[in-house]
Amino acid sequence: MKVRSSAGLRDRSALWFEDGKLIMIDQRALPHRMQLVSYSDSGSVAEAIRNMVIRGAPSIGAAAAYGMALACLKKEDLRVAAETLKSTRPTANDLFYAVDYMLMRIDAGDDPISAAEAYAQNIIDKCMAIGRYGSGLIRNGDIVMTHCNAGALATVDVGTALAPIRVAWNEGKRFTVIASETRPRLQGLQLTAWELIQEGIEHAVIVDGASGHFMRKGVNMVIVGADRIAANGDFANKIGTFEKAVLAKEAGVPFYVAAPASTFDFDTSCGEDIVIEDRSSEELTMIGGKYIAPQGVNVLNPAFDMTPARYVTAYVTEKGILSKEQISSMRG
Amino acid sequence: MKVRSSAGLRDRSALWFEDGKLIMIDQRALPHRMQLVSYSDSGSVAEAIRNMVIRGAPSIGAAAAYGMALACLKKEDLRVAAETLKSTRPTANDLFYAVDYMLMRIDAGDDPISAAEAYAQNIIDKCMAIGRYGSGLIRNGDIVMTHCNAGALATVDVGTALAPIRVAWNEGKRFTVIASETRPRLQGLQLTAWELIQEGIEHAVIVDGASGHFMRKGVNMVIVGADRIAANGDFANKIGTFEKAVLAKEAGVPFYVAAPASTFDFDTSCGEDIVIEDRSSEELTMIGGKYIAPQGVNVLNPAFDMTPARYVTAYVTEKGILSKEQISSMRG
Repeated sequence: MKVRSSAGLRDRSALWFEDGKLIMIDQRALPHRMQLVSYSDSGSVAEAIRNMVIRGAPSIGAAAAYGMALACLKKEDLRVAAETLKSTRPTANDLFYAVDYMLMRIDAGDDPISAAEAYAQNIIDKCMAIGRYGSGLIRNGDIVMTHCNAGALATVDVGTALAPIRVAWNEGKRFTVIASETRPRLQGLQLTAWELIQEGIEHAVIVDGASGHFMRKGVNMVIVGADRIAANGDFANKIGTFEKAVLAKEAGVPFYVAAPASTFDFDTSCGEDIVIEDRSSEELTMIGGKYIAPQGVNVLNPAFDMTPARYVTAYVTEKGILSKEQISSMRG
Repeated sequence: MKVRSSAGLRDRSALWFEDGKLIMIDQRALPHRMQLVSYSDSGSVAEAIRNMVIRGAPSIGAAAAYGMALACLKKEDLRVAAETLKSTRPTANDLFYAVDYMLMRIDAGDDPISAAEAYAQNIIDKCMAIGRYGSGLIRNGDIVMTHCNAGALATVDVGTALAPIRVAWNEGKRFTVIASETRPRLQGLQLTAWELIQEGIEHAVIVDGASGHFMRKGVNMVIVGADRIAANGDFANKIGTFEKAVLAKEAGVPFYVAAPASTFDFDTSCGEDIVIEDRSSEELTMIGGKYIAPQGVNVLNPAFDMTPARYVTAYVTEKGILSKEQISSMRG
């Protein structure tokens, strides 16, 4: 079975299970090639997460869920598989959530593939709910800014930040999405713009440094995804998110975070406790296999930043549009 | 004669006059190759400015001055040469200033090459003065953030924003420079880091979107150059500058603009009157000849942004460190 929604990528999801294998779109090959890769054990799924064949907190969670299902089918040591999967990327909450969910379902004797598929379908259903709640925020003629890719590729299908955009567009509203390119890995340029082009949604890509310029010229809202949201509403997301939150506040532009329950981590009290992953300098100094930096350069490359809750206008969730005081309703 | 300073690039300036020709470092080839190109008429100098063989407001001014000198030597129509040079890039004030200066000197019967060399030497002398005033702002152990390239390459030699950094380092102070890479053309990564490596100055390059993250973690000052400063202190500089100014204000970090008199334009009353150049989408969608975007992408690519004077702590000039109330002393 291929979990699907009608509001996401036109022809396929970011990942699905077929003939005993987990299939993923290799997101590193986009937008140049649609390349599918398949996995039949948990170790190779872990490698795919680490190497960013698949990325985006909810998609990582779904991949890890299928990874646990494969571990079960292959009669691997489930504790080792769980640890290996959890060790791949430190920041997103969904990864940990998904692995623990699968351990519970497997312990309960449930069919592991069905459990993983239910996990993935559940993400899509929540994204659709986020889309329905969030679409009410978008008006005809608006300019909506987003960052990185919180679209279908990041969330199995539909998206989190892109869900309200997709639903509003499908309702017939007409507006423009500004996507910042999102260095170093260019997910805004290479994934979000690609998704928007697939859907025929009006858009413009800008360099990350132009966000403030356009915010001052007139942006109506900023909407981003999140990799982990702490109990107090502080959240981690792709590097560059914090800047947009500050710029939005300065320009008086509403700033929304779109995320499902699995992104909320009530065991983390505030943003300062979220581990920020540092990635290799080559992400910055190489593009398309070409070295673009001077010899001897030093690089700092944090993959995420942390935005304090005071910059967030509201959280767009599958349970509604919540203030930071209301997010404890996402608990459990 | 080769105009030089002892505090800039170790082996050559960004441009100089030799054997009847204007020689420039092709800054598009850096940091991969040190490639020199030579020009013997004003039209080809104008093309070099337009194509960004040379960039940075003061270097553009010097190139235009030499372009006018070449026009004179080649007995070109000086009014046509002046218009052609002025039409290359709209934002920087130095270009217009330099062409008008040369017309005046030529009208006065001065030797055109000597006049252009005096113009270039004058920039270097002013940069050295900026360096001496600005170095007092930098303390041992500081983290100093800059954007784009306001170094020797941008100003014939020494630099504007990099002048205080060079002088402080040569005085024996030890600190770290954070250079943001400056998409789309990567002047921070490819030129500023290259200059800092040449000088042995401790540095780290970050993506533009990480500026806010590091500002919050602890940056002691931000110092940038300017392409044009209006009478009220509003200024245009490389896209991404405005964001740093807002983030610095939010984090309580002092924000300095380093620029010589030629950058101040008292005929422009405020920043809203400065023309912002839009450049081609290929600057964003191509890197090193490789297309990196999805087919059908729309791009907005303003080369500069405008930062209101209220975000500026002070202006570091050859006449001292000035408040926005004091900048009228740069007039005339």
